[in-house]
Amino acid sequence: MFSLQRQVYLDNNATTSVSRPVRKRMMQVLKGYYGNPSSPYSLGRSAARILAESRATVAGAMGAQAEEVIFTSCASEANNFLLKSLSQHYLAKGKRKIISSPIEHPSVMQTLEYLESSGVEVCYLSVDSQGFISLHELESLLDESTFLICCMLANNEIGTIQDIKGICELARQHNIHVMSDCVQALGKIPVNVNELGVDFASFSAHKIYGPKGVGAIYMKGDLPLCPLIHGGHQETGIRAGTESLHNIAGFAEACKAIPDSLAKQQQIAQNKQFFINGLKGLNEALQIISPDRACLSNTISVRFPGLNNAVLMATLDLYGISASAGSACSTAGTEPSHVLLSLGLSEEQANETLRFSLSETTKQRDLLYTLRIFSNVFAGKTPEIQAVRASKIDKAFIENPQNYLLDIRFWHERQMLKGIPNSYEVSFLFFKRYVKQIPKNKNIVVICMGGIDATAIAFTLKKRGIDNISFVLGGVVAWRLAQADLYKEIGGFNITKLTPS
Amino acid sequence: MFSLQRQVYLDNNATTSVSRPVRKRMMQVLKGYYGNPSSPYSLGRSAARILAESRATVAGAMGAQAEEVIFTSCASEANNFLLKSLSQHYLAKGKRKIISSPIEHPSVMQTLEYLESSGVEVCYLSVDSQGFISLHELESLLDESTFLICCMLANNEIGTIQDIKGICELARQHNIHVMSDCVQALGKIPVNVNELGVDFASFSAHKIYGPKGVGAIYMKGDLPLCPLIHGGHQETGIRAGTESLHNIAGFAEACKAIPDSLAKQQQIAQNKQFFINGLKGLNEALQIISPDRACLSNTISVRFPGLNNAVLMATLDLYGISASAGSACSTAGTEPSHVLLSLGLSEEQANETLRFSLSETTKQRDLLYTLRIFSNVFAGKTPEIQAVRASKIDKAFIENPQNYLLDIRFWHERQMLKGIPNSYEVSFLFFKRYVKQIPKNKNIVVICMGGIDATAIAFTLKKRGIDNISFVLGGVVAWRLAQADLYKEIGGFNITKLTPS
Repeated sequence: MFSLQRQVYLDNNATTSVSRPVRKRMMQVLKGYYGNPSSPYSLGRSAARILAESRATVAGAMGAQAEEVIFTSCASEANNFLLKSLSQHYLAKGKRKIISSPIEHPSVMQTLEYLESSGVEVCYLSVDSQGFISLHELESLLDESTFLICCMLANNEIGTIQDIKGICELARQHNIHVMSDCVQALGKIPVNVNELGVDFASFSAHKIYGPKGVGAIYMKGDLPLCPLIHGGHQETGIRAGTESLHNIAGFAEACKAIPDSLAKQQQIAQNKQFFINGLKGLNEALQIISPDRACLSNTISVRFPGLNNAVLMATLDLYGISASAGSACSTAGTEPSHVLLSLGLSEEQANETLRFSLSETTKQRDLLYTLRIFSNVFAGKTPEIQAVRASKIDKAFIENPQNYLLDIRFWHERQMLKGIPNSYEVSFLFFKRYVKQIPKNKNIVVICMGGIDATAIAFTLKKRGIDNISFVLGGVVAWRLAQADLYKEIGGFNITKLTPS
Repeated sequence: MFSLQRQVYLDNNATTSVSRPVRKRMMQVLKGYYGNPSSPYSLGRSAARILAESRATVAGAMGAQAEEVIFTSCASEANNFLLKSLSQHYLAKGKRKIISSPIEHPSVMQTLEYLESSGVEVCYLSVDSQGFISLHELESLLDESTFLICCMLANNEIGTIQDIKGICELARQHNIHVMSDCVQALGKIPVNVNELGVDFASFSAHKIYGPKGVGAIYMKGDLPLCPLIHGGHQETGIRAGTESLHNIAGFAEACKAIPDSLAKQQQIAQNKQFFINGLKGLNEALQIISPDRACLSNTISVRFPGLNNAVLMATLDLYGISASAGSACSTAGTEPSHVLLSLGLSEEQANETLRFSLSETTKQRDLLYTLRIFSNVFAGKTPEIQAVRASKIDKAFIENPQNYLLDIRFWHERQMLKGIPNSYEVSFLFFKRYVKQIPKNKNIVVICMGGIDATAIAFTLKKRGIDNISFVLGGVVAWRLAQADLYKEIGGFNITKLTPS
C-alpha cells in the first residue's frame, strides 16, 4: 500500500532534473576553469572565453545577439531588475503606467505590487477562462503614460501561450516597450525574441534541464538602466558579482539541447492527451483547466471536484508521484493560486486543482502508474486523512485534552503568526526525529501554515499506525481568519516545543 | 623562455579553486536532489532538508544561528541588499547617514555612490598608510542621523584586518548598526559575528574553495527590510528565486573545511614571509604595502618602483604566474586601485603595485619559481614590450602609415568610448584567430580600454615574432583624457573591423 519505490516526477514546470551533459560540463568548468573571468591573466581569460561562448550559445537559443544577453542568478532576479529599472527610468520621465496580465509569475506580481507603492500605476488586463488576454482590451488601456506591457509568453500553471507577437505589434504603434517572461516557453515552443518583437525578456536554466541559480535577460537597445546589483563591471556593468561560471556554462549546455527538446514536443503532447483521456475515463466530473489550443504540450491543469488538492497531492506523494497545487514560488500554499482565481474559479475550485507538467523523459508507463493510483483514489482505496475546517477549532476544541495539536510550521512562519494554543511544535523537515513522542491514543491534528505541508505529515503518522489523524484546512492562516477573536485573545499560549529524539 | 607549463596561482583573493569535496558534494546534489525546495512532496522536502542543513552549517561557520542566515547569489548581492534596504528603511525614519571606510569592496563603494544620489549622506573615514581606520575619528563622526557603520573585516587588496569589535562597541553606545563585509576574512581568521558584535555581515563561497555564485547574509534581529528580489517566499521572503541548491550545498561543504583552513594559516604566513624576504633580497627598492600587523596571512601587496603593474602582471602571466593589480571586481583596469590611493599612494605608485594572495595549496617551490622569474625580470632577462604614453598618440602618430593600431577592447567597451582613428578591431578573447592578419613590418600598437589587457596581447604577438610591439598606457580611457580635442574631432573615424580567419 505504501510503496515509495517508484518515482514519477510530474512537476517539471517547477524545476527539471539536470541532464547528464549539463552536469558533465559543469564539473569540467568547476574543476578546470576556476579563474575569475574578470582577471586579465591566462586563467582568467580562459574563464572569460567560456563566459563569452556561453553567452553566444544562450543568445542563439533565443534568437538574440550575444551582446543583448545579461546573465543573472535566476529569472526572478531578471524580472525584478527589468521591472524596477524600467520603472525608475520612466518615472523620471513622467511616464508611470505598466499594463500586465494578472497571471504572471510571483516574481512579476510581487514586484509590481511593490512598484505600486513607489508611484507606478499598474493596470491588470482581464483573462478569459483559459487565461488568454484580449488585444482589444489591451489597446483600450494604452495611453501616453504607459511605458511597458508585461506579459509572459507561456503560463507556468496552466500552459496558456499568449499572442506576444500581436501584443508587440500593438505596442510598437504606440511606442511602448514589451517585456515577456519566457521562462516556461523556452525549450517547449520555438522562442525567437526578434520574431516575437519583444524589447525585454527573461529566461531560466532550471526549467530546461539546466542548473538552478542562473537566468538571463534579453535586452534590446541601450536604455541606460540602473543596475539591481551595483559593484563590478561584470555583465557590462548591469549586474555586478563574480559570475557563477559553472552555472552559466551549464545553462549554455542546456540550451544546446533545445532543438532536441522541441523535436520531442509532439511525443510529449501525445503523452499529455493519453493522460487526460485516462483521467477522464476514470472520473467524468473532472475539469481540464488548461486551454485546448495554444497551450504548452507538457502542462495539464485539472480540477477534481470535491477533492482537496493538498490531500490529493500528499496522497500522490505517498506513491512517489510529484504534482503541484500551484507555482512553487507562491507563498507556501497559504493562498489559492492567483492564476486560477483570475480565470474565474472560486477559491474552493482553485483548491481542487492540480497541475501536472511532463518532461521529455516522462514515459507512458509513468502515466499508466499514475492513472492506476488515481483509480484507487477515486475508489476510496488509498489511505485517507480527515480535514478539519479552521472554524471548528474553537475554545472547546483546543481545551479538549483528547485533541493533540501538532504544529509543524517552519521557524520563520512561527515568527509571522502565533500558534494555536496548547499545540506542540516539531520540525517539518526533520519530522522523523519526533515521531516516537506523538501519542497514539489521542486525536492528532496536524497544523501547518497554509494547509499543504500538514497533509504529508498526517500521512506519515498514519503510516506509523496512528489512525486518529487529521489536518487543518488552510492551516494557521485560515484559523487566524476564522477565529480572529480567539487568535487575538489566546494565540500563542501554552505552546510546547518538543525536542528531537 | 616562454614556458607556459607551470601554473602558479597567486590570486586567491580574487577567487579560489574549488576543492574536491566541494565538487563531489555539488555533483551529488545536482544529480540526486533536483526537486524544488519549495515543493511540498518528498523530492522537494529532501531538497529543503539539504537547504536547512546547509544553512545550519554556514551559520555555524560564522557563529550565527541558522535563522540569521540568508543565502544570496554572491556577496555583491548581499552588500547591495543590506545597504539599499537599510537605507530605504532608515530614510523613511528620517535618518540618512552612513559612515564607511574608503577601502571597501567595489560592490559597497558603488552602492554607496548610488545611494548618495537618492538622499543618503555617506561619510568616509580616513585610513592610515596601512589601511587602518581610527576609532577616534569614527566617534567624532557619529551623530543622531547616523544609522549605519559599514566597514569590512579584512581588506581584499592589502589584507588589513580592522578592529570591528571596537567599532561595534562604539556603535552600540550610540545605538547604530554595524555591517561588515567578511568575505576575505572567512577561513583566514576566526570569524564569529556574535563576538565581533556586528548586526549585518556578508560572506562568499568562492573565496573559501567553494563555488562561484553563492553568498550569504548574516542578519541579527528582525528589521522589516525590503527584499532586493521580490517574488517567492524563499529565504523567508527576503530573497526570492529558486535556490541554487548545489551551490548552497557546496558553500556548506566549503564551510566544513574552515577549521582545517585556520589551522593552515601559520604555514601560509611562513610562506608569505619567505616570499617577502625573497623579493626584498632581489630588489631593495620595493615597498611592502600590506600592514606588518593585523594583516591576513595570505595577502601581500607590493610596490615595484619604476615598473608598471600591467606589464609586470602580463610578464608573470607569460610564465604561468597569476597575480593581480587590484580587485577583479573594479572597473577592468581603467582606474588605479581606490584602496591604494586611499592609503596615500599616488596614481603612479598605485600603478606600480601588485597583489599576491596565497592559498592553502601554495607550495614553497611555487614561490621559489616566482622569485626566479622576478629575478629575471629585475635583470632585464624577460621579454619586454614598450609602453606608449597616451599623450604621444597625436594626429601625426595616427596618420603615420608605419603605425598599426590594434584595438582589442570588448564590444561593450567599444560602445562606451569611441576608438582611436585608423585602428583595427579584433577580439581580445579569441585573438588567436586574428594573428595571421597582423602585419610584421609595421609598428604594432596594442590598445585596450584601461591598459591591462593590451599587455597580454602584446606579449602574444612578441612571441609570434613581431618585435615592433608596444601598448598604450591607460588605454582608450587615458587617450580620451590626454587628447580630448582629437577624441571629439575624429574619435571613431576610419575603424576597420578585422574578421577572424
